[in-house]
Amino acid sequence: MKRALTVTREDNFPEWYQAVVDQADLAETSPVRGCMIIKPWGWGIWELVQASLDKRIKETGHENCYFPLFIPLSFIAQEASHVEGFAKEMAVVTHHRLKAVDGKLVVDPTSELEEPLVVRPTSETIIGDAFRRWVSSYRDLPILINQWANVVRWEMRTRMFLRTTEFLWQEGHTAHATREDALEETLKMLEVYRELAEDVLAMPVMVGEKPENERFPGADATYSIEAMMQDGKALQAGTSHYLGTNFARAQNIRFQSAAGDLEFCHTTSWGVSTRLIGGVIMTHGDDDGLRLPPRIAPQQVVIVPMLREKPEDAEVLAYCEKLKAELDGLVAFGQPLRAKLDKKPARAATKRWDWVRRGAPVILEVGPRDATSDKVTMIRRDKLYEGEKVRSELCSREAFKENVAGLLAEIQANLFAEAKARLDGNIRSDLLSFEAIAAFFGKAADDDEKGGAFKGWVRAPWARPTGAELEQVETRLKALKLTLRNVPMGQTGAPTGVCVFTGRPAVEDIIIARSY
Amino acid sequence: MKRALTVTREDNFPEWYQAVVDQADLAETSPVRGCMIIKPWGWGIWELVQASLDKRIKETGHENCYFPLFIPLSFIAQEASHVEGFAKEMAVVTHHRLKAVDGKLVVDPTSELEEPLVVRPTSETIIGDAFRRWVSSYRDLPILINQWANVVRWEMRTRMFLRTTEFLWQEGHTAHATREDALEETLKMLEVYRELAEDVLAMPVMVGEKPENERFPGADATYSIEAMMQDGKALQAGTSHYLGTNFARAQNIRFQSAAGDLEFCHTTSWGVSTRLIGGVIMTHGDDDGLRLPPRIAPQQVVIVPMLREKPEDAEVLAYCEKLKAELDGLVAFGQPLRAKLDKKPARAATKRWDWVRRGAPVILEVGPRDATSDKVTMIRRDKLYEGEKVRSELCSREAFKENVAGLLAEIQANLFAEAKARLDGNIRSDLLSFEAIAAFFGKAADDDEKGGAFKGWVRAPWARPTGAELEQVETRLKALKLTLRNVPMGQTGAPTGVCVFTGRPAVEDIIIARSY
Repeated sequence: MKRALTVTREDNFPEWYQAVVDQADLAETSPVRGCMIIKPWGWGIWELVQASLDKRIKETGHENCYFPLFIPLSFIAQEASHVEGFAKEMAVVTHHRLKAVDGKLVVDPTSELEEPLVVRPTSETIIGDAFRRWVSSYRDLPILINQWANVVRWEMRTRMFLRTTEFLWQEGHTAHATREDALEETLKMLEVYRELAEDVLAMPVMVGEKPENERFPGADATYSIEAMMQDGKALQAGTSHYLGTNFARAQNIRFQSAAGDLEFCHTTSWGVSTRLIGGVIMTHGDDDGLRLPPRIAPQQVVIVPMLREKPEDAEVLAYCEKLKAELDGLVAFGQPLRAKLDKKPARAATKRWDWVRRGAPVILEVGPRDATSDKVTMIRRDKLYEGEKVRSELCSREAFKENVAGLLAEIQANLFAEAKARLDGNIRSDLLSFEAIAAFFGKAADDDEKGGAFKGWVRAPWARPTGAELEQVETRLKALKLTLRNVPMGQTGAPTGVCVFTGRPAVEDIIIARSY
Repeated sequence: MKRALTVTREDNFPEWYQAVVDQADLAETSPVRGCMIIKPWGWGIWELVQASLDKRIKETGHENCYFPLFIPLSFIAQEASHVEGFAKEMAVVTHHRLKAVDGKLVVDPTSELEEPLVVRPTSETIIGDAFRRWVSSYRDLPILINQWANVVRWEMRTRMFLRTTEFLWQEGHTAHATREDALEETLKMLEVYRELAEDVLAMPVMVGEKPENERFPGADATYSIEAMMQDGKALQAGTSHYLGTNFARAQNIRFQSAAGDLEFCHTTSWGVSTRLIGGVIMTHGDDDGLRLPPRIAPQQVVIVPMLREKPEDAEVLAYCEKLKAELDGLVAFGQPLRAKLDKKPARAATKRWDWVRRGAPVILEVGPRDATSDKVTMIRRDKLYEGEKVRSELCSREAFKENVAGLLAEIQANLFAEAKARLDGNIRSDLLSFEAIAAFFGKAADDDEKGGAFKGWVRAPWARPTGAELEQVETRLKALKLTLRNVPMGQTGAPTGVCVFTGRPAVEDIIIARSY
């Protein structure tokens, strides 16, 4: 059976991923190493993710602001474990002028900066410096801010959306009077991320705390949402950090308490990025391209007129224009429905498949017969085939209009349910020894490069080893290309069993998986 | 009479400007030279400007996308006059790694980039490179895109919002088959900018074409909107460029025409930036701080409860909460009204003056008597005084609610009318010789540093000199700290008079002013 992409998920998952990015018109490589050009369809998705998250960030009491792109080198060095733990691959600005030499532009050596500037890889240090100035009394707390920004990390191996040198994200930064308040904030934003992932992106996630070795450098606790991709790997889709008083001590962020004492603030930070789009692709994409949850589809309904360069074309177009105007007046998910009439001069079949690859949730094909009988021919992207044939449904224009909001909600729910079943059905919790886990995942064979066979995750009892013992665990897992993902929240009751790594009584379960 | 700021516009305009930026909580200096921190109130204004403009950009058929922050050095060199004309003060990334040496972080010399990367000062070259790949046939045209981005120009003298090393803007870039289409686009976006400035920012502008010497490097024509600040200087608030085929030739952006010929595209670019906020401050600010046009006020109505740490506080608060909820349900300018209840623990008078300085259009003070009699005490920021006293008006809660949308529209219109009268009343067109113009502006005296006496603009006949002759004009004006601003659009009828620079018959009028 022929599919719209030339490579399938099963044949070669990484190639399939790149094919979706290309053929759904999401992004393309740029002449700048590791940086991508986000094209209108990809950017449209990001705008909807942003709007949805921004609303939630504001509803939880945060205010947006904007801090400089550049960070003085000395700032990066302030928090010791931040320095040690953070990858040192950063873009460094050392000069501030070009000059023409023999008609060629070169860096002017006389323009060297006294102190090099780092292009922000994250903004804890420069925002902490402002917190120090902004906070003096307990009355100034909490400070709850967020910024939408581009950040740069000089990655060696890049992959569109998942790991790029420059990426776009939001980073929330807050300061509180007490540990309790800061921890509550950390978990509140984690819950916002879960809701964004599950309710908006239709991407089910496992919510939990990262083990010590996977913490953000300088954090006392890091929490994450982890999503299961269709190759069985885990994608860390968002993180929320309780930074304790580590940054406050390093940066002298102090406040006078109600009792008159000078105390260090407890700070947090949390972020999600354009990586989420990679997660959407690998959660919902199929061998015909992308499938977009309607909530983040730049166009939810695309009308494709079947034009034949014949006189009746005018009538078909007029009918489509009217339908588009009617759809524009409707509401889906509490917002104006997004509909597009694709009038591009191209064959209708070509356009249909373009929209299939891009993942438009509903495609309406309208030919002369539909126009005269007041009907539309509807294709649902989430249920594209019936047997080997594309499944289309003829329905009256009126009925379509009446049902379209519900239909979009149904598609949203279907995509979530499908992904949720995959997540729930592919976490093994019956592998109770390291040997059993190793056997399950098998050797990290050559075919792992192609994505390998679907393996899923393992949920295993563990005793929360730390320090050198945890390093050993990491090394053993690394040999199998495995990592510790997170300790799922809400584990109640007395833990049972024996830690698969240490043999000691387990204190909780942890998720183990291959990952992006 | 005591005012809310310690410095007045008349005493020292630049210091007054900085006082508004500080005391309206718009922005503050950062530890990074020339870069600012945009604080929540300033950022809130920018978000509203963005939303309003973004809607217009989309309505005119453009799509948003995102290009890399970095531009390879060789790209900057592609378009000769772009290279020559563009200031070469740019941030240059030369290395990609830090390393710890004796516990200190330094730039790792082994991480030098093969080709330095420039932090984008504008994106014509990297976007043109994509256009070359995207365009092959006339069917691919026009390409109409826009991006919201941060850009960096290494400015020597910086001033908050008006000229900062990093600033935020949108840059539109389009490619067309013909000169006519490209020029139409250039002027269409110029009109969008005029509408944004006048209808949204309440900032009247003079719309016109820049003289040759003020063109964007590489452009065939540059158009601008120019606003008059309260010190009589001009602020270039937005530009739209017709780039001819200059960039297309340099970057080989070609298409096959319907006739089968290979032709160069005609391209345009256009942008406005966070500088607009500086324009709003200097158009509407007064000696009590900022006055915000309601359309871009992050909070349009601020409720200040008069709390006395007494039992009746609870009643006052409950009344205010109810009022705030009612206001949230109203609509102003076609959008949900933005109201805030300021519950910060501070004296009511302090809070009142904080909101006056921030420029909230309407402040409602609510004390126990207001609460029990179902009233509010209203202060309008655009009409703050009656004689020497703050003007407040007692009105019933019901009446306020009924009238508030109209009141906000009236404030918006008032601010525009006031600024429009200043612009129209301060353009001299009766100075018909260079000597008369020089005498009018006077010597650029020391007091120019403080803003000097208000002078306004001159509209003078000119013969459109070019080349060396125009350079002479520039030099003569420069000695008086004057510049040519633009040639206002819509000059009809045969021009009269003699060019004030060349003595030849004039072909049109041009605006001359001191400027930012």
